[in-house]
Amino acid sequence: MRGVSHTTAPAPAVTLSASPRDADTGRLLISCDDRPGIVAAVAAFLRERGANIAQSDQYSTDPEGGRFFLRMVFHMGGLAEALPRMEGEFSAEVAEPFDMRFQLRDASVPKRVAILVSRYDHCLLDLLWRWRRRELHLDVGLVISNHPDLRDEVTGFGVPYEHVPVTRDTKAEAEAAELELLRGRFDLVVLARYMQVLSAGFLEQVGAPVINIHHSFLPAFAGAGPYERARERGVKLIGATAHYVTEDLDAGPIIEQDVIRVSHRDNAAELTRLGADIERTVLERAVRWHCEDRVLVNANTTVVF
Amino acid sequence: MRGVSHTTAPAPAVTLSASPRDADTGRLLISCDDRPGIVAAVAAFLRERGANIAQSDQYSTDPEGGRFFLRMVFHMGGLAEALPRMEGEFSAEVAEPFDMRFQLRDASVPKRVAILVSRYDHCLLDLLWRWRRRELHLDVGLVISNHPDLRDEVTGFGVPYEHVPVTRDTKAEAEAAELELLRGRFDLVVLARYMQVLSAGFLEQVGAPVINIHHSFLPAFAGAGPYERARERGVKLIGATAHYVTEDLDAGPIIEQDVIRVSHRDNAAELTRLGADIERTVLERAVRWHCEDRVLVNANTTVVF
Amino acid sequence: MRGVSHTTAPAPAVTLSASPRDADTGRLLISCDDRPGIVAAVAAFLRERGANIAQSDQYSTDPEGGRFFLRMVFHMGGLAEALPRMEGEFSAEVAEPFDMRFQLRDASVPKRVAILVSRYDHCLLDLLWRWRRRELHLDVGLVISNHPDLRDEVTGFGVPYEHVPVTRDTKAEAEAAELELLRGRFDLVVLARYMQVLSAGFLEQVGAPVINIHHSFLPAFAGAGPYERARERGVKLIGATAHYVTEDLDAGPIIEQDVIRVSHRDNAAELTRLGADIERTVLERAVRWHCEDRVLVNANTTVVF
Amino acid sequence: MRGVSHTTAPAPAVTLSASPRDADTGRLLISCDDRPGIVAAVAAFLRERGANIAQSDQYSTDPEGGRFFLRMVFHMGGLAEALPRMEGEFSAEVAEPFDMRFQLRDASVPKRVAILVSRYDHCLLDLLWRWRRRELHLDVGLVISNHPDLRDEVTGFGVPYEHVPVTRDTKAEAEAAELELLRGRFDLVVLARYMQVLSAGFLEQVGAPVINIHHSFLPAFAGAGPYERARERGVKLIGATAHYVTEDLDAGPIIEQDVIRVSHRDNAAELTRLGADIERTVLERAVRWHCEDRVLVNANTTVVF
Repeated sequence: MRGVSHTTAPAPAVTLSASPRDADTGRLLISCDDRPGIVAAVAAFLRERGANIAQSDQYSTDPEGGRFFLRMVFHMGGLAEALPRMEGEFSAEVAEPFDMRFQLRDASVPKRVAILVSRYDHCLLDLLWRWRRRELHLDVGLVISNHPDLRDEVTGFGVPYEHVPVTRDTKAEAEAAELELLRGRFDLVVLARYMQVLSAGFLEQVGAPVINIHHSFLPAFAGAGPYERARERGVKLIGATAHYVTEDLDAGPIIEQDVIRVSHRDNAAELTRLGADIERTVLERAVRWHCEDRVLVNANTTVVF
Repeated sequence: MRGVSHTTAPAPAVTLSASPRDADTGRLLISCDDRPGIVAAVAAFLRERGANIAQSDQYSTDPEGGRFFLRMVFHMGGLAEALPRMEGEFSAEVAEPFDMRFQLRDASVPKRVAILVSRYDHCLLDLLWRWRRRELHLDVGLVISNHPDLRDEVTGFGVPYEHVPVTRDTKAEAEAAELELLRGRFDLVVLARYMQVLSAGFLEQVGAPVINIHHSFLPAFAGAGPYERARERGVKLIGATAHYVTEDLDAGPIIEQDVIRVSHRDNAAELTRLGADIERTVLERAVRWHCEDRVLVNANTTVVF
Repeated sequence: MRGVSHTTAPAPAVTLSASPRDADTGRLLISCDDRPGIVAAVAAFLRERGANIAQSDQYSTDPEGGRFFLRMVFHMGGLAEALPRMEGEFSAEVAEPFDMRFQLRDASVPKRVAILVSRYDHCLLDLLWRWRRRELHLDVGLVISNHPDLRDEVTGFGVPYEHVPVTRDTKAEAEAAELELLRGRFDLVVLARYMQVLSAGFLEQVGAPVINIHHSFLPAFAGAGPYERARERGVKLIGATAHYVTEDLDAGPIIEQDVIRVSHRDNAAELTRLGADIERTVLERAVRWHCEDRVLVNANTTVVF
Repeated sequence: MRGVSHTTAPAPAVTLSASPRDADTGRLLISCDDRPGIVAAVAAFLRERGANIAQSDQYSTDPEGGRFFLRMVFHMGGLAEALPRMEGEFSAEVAEPFDMRFQLRDASVPKRVAILVSRYDHCLLDLLWRWRRRELHLDVGLVISNHPDLRDEVTGFGVPYEHVPVTRDTKAEAEAAELELLRGRFDLVVLARYMQVLSAGFLEQVGAPVINIHHSFLPAFAGAGPYERARERGVKLIGATAHYVTEDLDAGPIIEQDVIRVSHRDNAAELTRLGADIERTVLERAVRWHCEDRVLVNANTTVVF
């Protein structure tokens, strides 16, 4: 537990993309009340520092009195060294005048990620495997499970595995142990089919956003047993939903959803099998987008650039 | 109202399929408790009459003590004349011994269809176009609307248009007038975005199944304003659901569903536009499948062959 | 022919979107060699004129020595009056220093569109109907066909219909007659299942981009009879492709594609029916995107913002 | 090589489906010229032996003079013992009179599968995971690769790994070594991104069907470098195709295809990443369907029940 180190993935047999990973690439995220001149001010700030804007996405909930969201990706030599000073300057010159919230990120620094899992392995393995083959630019530092089953799989990827059992009576202690493992060490916690509800206190203290995969097309079939209930209702598509976890069960901001066609022939076991493929795909996209700083929260919804 | 005639569609410029429409083709639908020998008995019955089974689909909810569903399509010379006698013989020789419910249909006889609509035209026009193009093998005999707006469109297809206004106070009278127009004349009633809730009494007396298109992916967003609520919840896909109408609003057996991807950029008006395309597609499939005798009801779900 | 007027669509029963159409909204399209400072220069230019950037999309084929594409949507009071002067100023202050190609458009001015069609009505009707219900912001001023069949349908939408027969021997004259009808009067020509190949000379002289819908997933099944060939090859999906027309048959820049699942049961007539739904959907998207100035051509491909 | 044993997958942490695997379940596959009485004869044969038909699918290329295909799944106590005698009886009583080709299978007996792979791991791992999770009812007995890279991965699943290097000069010897490993031991050979073309002689001698995954939507981009060529052509969807391997490269009967949406932003590396997800999904379905005896070859196409 003490020795949690943020390992890098072992070299894969074939790396899909050989490009040097996002060196000298910055990402700027902004939200503020919409008004004329924001883009000009931001672009001028970057221009003065020799940065080349490589990508830019913006969205306004309403051009009159709405909320404005911006994501810019830019290339700039010597970014890593310049970043701390840039943050201060941006704050003073741009963010304060426009009353902005902003984040300035070095894209070459991977997010530190912890994964919580129970006994289903499909979401976990898909994330670990994509990370190993360098499809996902992040750093998996820890897997926590309330079951011991997946230890060998996980350690085979070079990732520490902590077994923290949870029973009705020991839930508070278990969460405390998990917090001890997580707090201050991670930028993102992923629930990859973790079958325990996290308390409000845990969410407050964990100090990082938490992404969950729910095995239904929310808001349909929130709560337990979604595949059984989908079968009973006779739906013709089943789905999965990745969302940020909030105090309200299965009601947090949705990041991504997808569905697959089913028929009367598919019993609950078949739905579970078919749904598993959608779950891992949807969770992978949500984690990727979060780690690429593409997801901005707008009240109880998301803006995904 | 008096002169309701079951018109055939005017000849289209180009008919997509030129085959002689299902002459000498029969369809047999069966449901009964599952047990060995059903298929053999049915196949022998058809064999003895020189029929060639062209298609066969079956489903059992459980091989042990489940419910069995069968749909067979067969070719047989002189079917139309033979059908009445065959029905009696099938009843005595096969259906009674197996305690079956069955239907024996001449595929060349189109279902007589009435459409109810309010002011949105997209589902209605799509059905009428497909019918005129001979894509849909049915016979649209009447359109009823609680608004006068679409009269010219509908009569341009050679279909009578009855305007039956509905207000809170006149709902009972309006339903009575609609029943007068519908009862005994139609095999299917389609609600093509008809924005009035039909009473239990109406459904009992109309004497034909009623298919509705709901503009959400049920069971999510049942009831009013589904696109607005989808927008508020921040879902990443919106959908539509075609279902048989029962007393419980938006809770009847689902025939077909589909979805389309949306994003934070799509406001409620955009969702309405994108959803309209899914609505007309889903309704068209449900109507087609119903008219091809592909849909069997199993409690509150459907078997679609 | 003389009297071709650019009619506006008759008022629909229900308009999906009631917003005042893009008043005071401008669109700026740019392509140039990529280098730092482009966005800052453009944003400053708009800022100085009080414009609020509502949407911005950019793409670079390569941050080092690549080609840069930009589309900005902005709000600015009095745009229509200011536009001619702005064009000159933008040219001098921004476009020339960066060696840009650019277009500055008033979004409230609909594109003038002519449609060429043969005998299949599905693509044509879908476009006319979407235009009438104000889903498509354009102005259909003329339909030309080499067959007389669809005249009543088209004139029912208030659009002139010109029948220009084409035979092997009269092709040159027919194209001349079509050019007479089209040249200088339209911003876009749409081939909505027009079954004649247009000559290079025609394309040169028509003076507007031409969008075609091809009934296959290009580059598979280019040329004649794609559904028959798809059937023979036993593919499990069929598709449609909307592309700008160039001299090379079915080889121009692709704007949009989509597919639908088929099976061994679907004969060529069924493929034609199923494919028709994809054709109209894909063509509608391509026309919409073109008319919203979202499509930029990059060699033989497109950038779609 | 000597010690090739057909291992069963190690027990997974969670098995998705807990049903006893297809005990006493038979599958009957038939093809013959279409004529009346086939279904009746087959059903009577099964009825006389107390079998309950659980599923039945049939297809005729043409009711008049076409080719007929049938797949029946049935339950019958004591199937395993009865099967050899049933085969003889079916041959004499049903197959010969109707000039049928047929197969009678015990569904509880898994197909013995060998996988050939080069260096990309995504298709291979997905098959192995699904097999370990008991999603796929088959028996992976051997992996052969022309590279040593994936040995540890594969042996971790309890499967033997044979490295058979291939160079231009040693191709004949390499194929001979592979045939030595495969011949007579397997029911199916899967090319899970095996980057060598197999000779006609190899295909003749291997004694089992061979399924390949090609990384394009065939017939588009057959041959080498499909993602690069897709990028150059500017397609808006990319796909993958699973097909039986024949002498003609990428031209064998297609079992399954699927696609994913891409855009101008996706370079060849991105297409490779996105396509990999489709490749593994499409290959998994083709292998599943083949192992469930759902795929019948009809000239150069397939019937998939």
